Amino acid sequence: MNFEELIQDVYLKIKSREDKGERASYIPELSNVDPKNFGVHISTINQVNFGIGNYNDKFSIQSISKVLALILAYRIVGDEIWDRVGVEPSGTAFNSLFQLEADKGIPRNPFLNGGAIVVSDILLSNLKNPKEDFIDFVRGISNNTTLEYSNSIAQSEKDVGYRNVALCNFIKSFGQIENEPSVILDFYYDLCSLEMSCKELSELFLFLANNGLGLQNNESILSESQSKRINALMQTCGFYDESGEFAFKVGLPGKSGVGGGIIAIHPDQYAIAVWSPKLNKKGNSYKGMMFLEEFTTRSELSLF
Amino acid sequence: MNFEELIQDVYLKIKSREDKGERASYIPELSNVDPKNFGVHISTINQVNFGIGNYNDKFSIQSISKVLALILAYRIVGDEIWDRVGVEPSGTAFNSLFQLEADKGIPRNPFLNGGAIVVSDILLSNLKNPKEDFIDFVRGISNNTTLEYSNSIAQSEKDVGYRNVALCNFIKSFGQIENEPSVILDFYYDLCSLEMSCKELSELFLFLANNGLGLQNNESILSESQSKRINALMQTCGFYDESGEFAFKVGLPGKSGVGGGIIAIHPDQYAIAVWSPKLNKKGNSYKGMMFLEEFTTRSELSLF
Amino acid sequence: MNFEELIQDVYLKIKSREDKGERASYIPELSNVDPKNFGVHISTINQVNFGIGNYNDKFSIQSISKVLALILAYRIVGDEIWDRVGVEPSGTAFNSLFQLEADKGIPRNPFLNGGAIVVSDILLSNLKNPKEDFIDFVRGISNNTTLEYSNSIAQSEKDVGYRNVALCNFIKSFGQIENEPSVILDFYYDLCSLEMSCKELSELFLFLANNGLGLQNNESILSESQSKRINALMQTCGFYDESGEFAFKVGLPGKSGVGGGIIAIHPDQYAIAVWSPKLNKKGNSYKGMMFLEEFTTRSELSLF
Amino acid sequence: MNFEELIQDVYLKIKSREDKGERASYIPELSNVDPKNFGVHISTINQVNFGIGNYNDKFSIQSISKVLALILAYRIVGDEIWDRVGVEPSGTAFNSLFQLEADKGIPRNPFLNGGAIVVSDILLSNLKNPKEDFIDFVRGISNNTTLEYSNSIAQSEKDVGYRNVALCNFIKSFGQIENEPSVILDFYYDLCSLEMSCKELSELFLFLANNGLGLQNNESILSESQSKRINALMQTCGFYDESGEFAFKVGLPGKSGVGGGIIAIHPDQYAIAVWSPKLNKKGNSYKGMMFLEEFTTRSELSLF
Repeated sequence: MNFEELIQDVYLKIKSREDKGERASYIPELSNVDPKNFGVHISTINQVNFGIGNYNDKFSIQSISKVLALILAYRIVGDEIWDRVGVEPSGTAFNSLFQLEADKGIPRNPFLNGGAIVVSDILLSNLKNPKEDFIDFVRGISNNTTLEYSNSIAQSEKDVGYRNVALCNFIKSFGQIENEPSVILDFYYDLCSLEMSCKELSELFLFLANNGLGLQNNESILSESQSKRINALMQTCGFYDESGEFAFKVGLPGKSGVGGGIIAIHPDQYAIAVWSPKLNKKGNSYKGMMFLEEFTTRSELSLF
Repeated sequence: MNFEELIQDVYLKIKSREDKGERASYIPELSNVDPKNFGVHISTINQVNFGIGNYNDKFSIQSISKVLALILAYRIVGDEIWDRVGVEPSGTAFNSLFQLEADKGIPRNPFLNGGAIVVSDILLSNLKNPKEDFIDFVRGISNNTTLEYSNSIAQSEKDVGYRNVALCNFIKSFGQIENEPSVILDFYYDLCSLEMSCKELSELFLFLANNGLGLQNNESILSESQSKRINALMQTCGFYDESGEFAFKVGLPGKSGVGGGIIAIHPDQYAIAVWSPKLNKKGNSYKGMMFLEEFTTRSELSLF
Repeated sequence: MNFEELIQDVYLKIKSREDKGERASYIPELSNVDPKNFGVHISTINQVNFGIGNYNDKFSIQSISKVLALILAYRIVGDEIWDRVGVEPSGTAFNSLFQLEADKGIPRNPFLNGGAIVVSDILLSNLKNPKEDFIDFVRGISNNTTLEYSNSIAQSEKDVGYRNVALCNFIKSFGQIENEPSVILDFYYDLCSLEMSCKELSELFLFLANNGLGLQNNESILSESQSKRINALMQTCGFYDESGEFAFKVGLPGKSGVGGGIIAIHPDQYAIAVWSPKLNKKGNSYKGMMFLEEFTTRSELSLF
Repeated sequence: MNFEELIQDVYLKIKSREDKGERASYIPELSNVDPKNFGVHISTINQVNFGIGNYNDKFSIQSISKVLALILAYRIVGDEIWDRVGVEPSGTAFNSLFQLEADKGIPRNPFLNGGAIVVSDILLSNLKNPKEDFIDFVRGISNNTTLEYSNSIAQSEKDVGYRNVALCNFIKSFGQIENEPSVILDFYYDLCSLEMSCKELSELFLFLANNGLGLQNNESILSESQSKRINALMQTCGFYDESGEFAFKVGLPGKSGVGGGIIAIHPDQYAIAVWSPKLNKKGNSYKGMMFLEEFTTRSELSLF
């Protein structure tokens, strides 16, 4: 069975299942999305491209942006970035302040909210026009000039982001942040408000399956070693305190967002994006997790 | 460059480096081992076998046994095992009691001491002659009848094992252990006292690179799915609170022991064992980590 | 209204109330006690002695013994005792291991189980015949040769004391205990098994209301300064994570036990003991707390 | 020896000792205060008033204001206040976020920064002109119309108050705060910026030694029961994670501030205020603690 048939098969099976998740309710704008949306798109390094369902609809990629922000910061400051943020799974929820107190303001990894806030701080200190420069970077590597932030999502998140204000100021109180918290958070909410479709996501992230090289022009987006490290980080830390479960069941590096999107990478093979808005209790897409588990099991293409 | 040359090259380079680690001091017997020992052995599914240095010397495999205990328990009770122990990285040290209190006695994963104690409890409840049955199982899959426990190591560890007594009784106080703590710990110390060489380790663990099938007789030791899951667990949890670092730098599933041994698996390719007794601050072999980082970097054979 | 009338009045009022507590269930022997028992006895420095209800029945004083053990150890080693155990409220439950990990095995105060275990360790290292010497000490200060340990209670507690085994070994793993855990715990369970009546308790503890001087022969049991410090400790730490609530509502130094007993001291005035076996969620006597709140409110004799 | 002589004696003794404390450095304005300031003032219910040293100099009372804010809120909303903030010692530092996460945004007590922020929120919701109404209240009970906030101190604290922004937003994220964090914090910094002398403090707080009755006009500021409860809270929680130590050594309810002030109450007897700017490691006045320990020891007037 080839990828197309398998994806179609698994898609239909999961589509018919009851969706026991709940849409993210803490961001008002996200709770208005139609919960029946369900899309999948794969892009392979052999140029196979296949989508099904709402694979062309744009959604809020939310925390998936944390990978893009990390990639840009990694390109700019190199391994110095690891002085500011760790590479270990945290064993705690994405917005916990617990370990930050013990670790004196150094977030355990860049995919926790605290970690992404530190990465945003690094970008702010290193970019001339942070908001424009970031989206230019993302447009560049995806060869897609239509990508946009969603101001309404950014504003919606900002209005209720007390926990993020707490995280950012807490880290600042340890002297681990350079810029003003309100400036960092405005930028952070912009990053998280990026809207992309499954198709755009899988095309964008394909370079991580290709040792850091863009597929279209063979341009190096990250070095081979950097690309491997980003994948390793997504493997161990991409799903908050469900990262072990995802490695265990799906077996691929990946990253989820509370908009219901998930991107997963099979090094040397493909990038696959799934979108279904309802989330499980850990904040990861309920059907998205199910789809990927079934897909990697049946394709026998887990990393392990 | 083939594996033999590459291993030789990396081995000599790392051998000449200063060893900034320290031997495990809390187990008296382990602090007597010659710190200059350094051995490596690889076994590939294509039947390449190559060793260098002290690859034939036996050492105390310690926590690497936790993988073997898990495999045997997984064979016996199947997925019910995950009701008793989690699959998430803990973000804490190997012998921390911290999360156990919050999680009411369910260890985060089977490679923490608490988790391995629960796995030992499961084995005790399911084996007729636990000590004999376990070593028979290990001898069977490694086709090596000479493997033995070290009574002196087991006794040495038992004499100072207050933290493990605390862990075991703490879990028991939550009703998450069936047998008597002293019986479990005696068994647990036996498991950890297994002695093997790098050669024996890489041969033994090769089936995890082969989807659960033993190489010699094609016998299924674990199902393909179970084998992948053990690898995933080693990827996310094999190195305590340095698991992220290991994934980041080495990029392979693996497991370390305080005897200075490390086993790492490249699915579909090979198993490699390294031994050097001095440990870094996280309790993992200092030179072992270095060797594997350099080896996977230069072989361009990280998973990611 | 004098003490007799007031106690009688409050006693009858509280007796008629519904008892929403539960007997301690984790120690089998304690769950057999008749839950309707309810006794009160006061002893004043002006020689008033008055009891009501089951004030003459003996019960298991449990953690109230921790005060007696502390007093004996304080007499023997003086202020050096505070190198081994703190004087701060913990903010956690009586048997939590949480802070012990952060504090490297130094219990926050001597009334936590961990703290009492350290005090027991100190007594073991300083007494010739610990079990006999301790009860001789208690008999001496209470001028009552009939006081006895209950072997069945001690054994009953020992049989299920996994959490205490964990605590003791955990502290030992930090090097903060000298003797063998099993020896310490045997002694600790003996201490906690002491049986006394409300009358005996209030008579015994009266010296703490008298600046450390025994009432009968004016013998100094503790120095004035030591006596004040024991009272201060009971004020801030005597009721686990309900100590603030007790100070807030009752306003006297005191100590509770899971047998349902409470002793409270009004410096320069009296000692009062209450017994009612059913406990609230924090492990303190439900009706005992109620009685003391009403009694101090109506007598206008809180410390504050 | 009467109070005057004793205070003079102890004052001179402590004055000559080396001051091993450090001024609060995190609030720039506070680090400019002359560290040699040292004043004491006592006010008794028998109308004794006596001061020595810099007892008439105003200083920033900082956290001592938390007691005043609590008193005003307690007057307004009564016992409902305890639904929003606890009465237990926390066992952690004054600005820890640790327990707040476990307790879902309910601060352990009103003298932690988090607790005082919740009290400020209550005042904001219940006062027409919070800033004016609060100082009017304080002026009223102290019969002193000259009391003022210090704008420069409030601004100085605000400029570096990242930890407080974190605390306030963290509590808000649990829905435990009604008003906007920035508004609450502005008000909170105003409260903490109150400037008073030792003389003014001891006169102001004397009503807590008098069962809630103002001395001058016998007006009830708090009910007797409320007054006792405020004292009980100061006893168990007034000195952050040094509250047990203070009860142990000084034996009086009290409250400290990082400006170096301490107020202590002896119910039915007196209120005493001490000021010395250098702080010990727990954030309490180094010489202030020493003075009070020596004073209560020699006056034999600890509560216990």
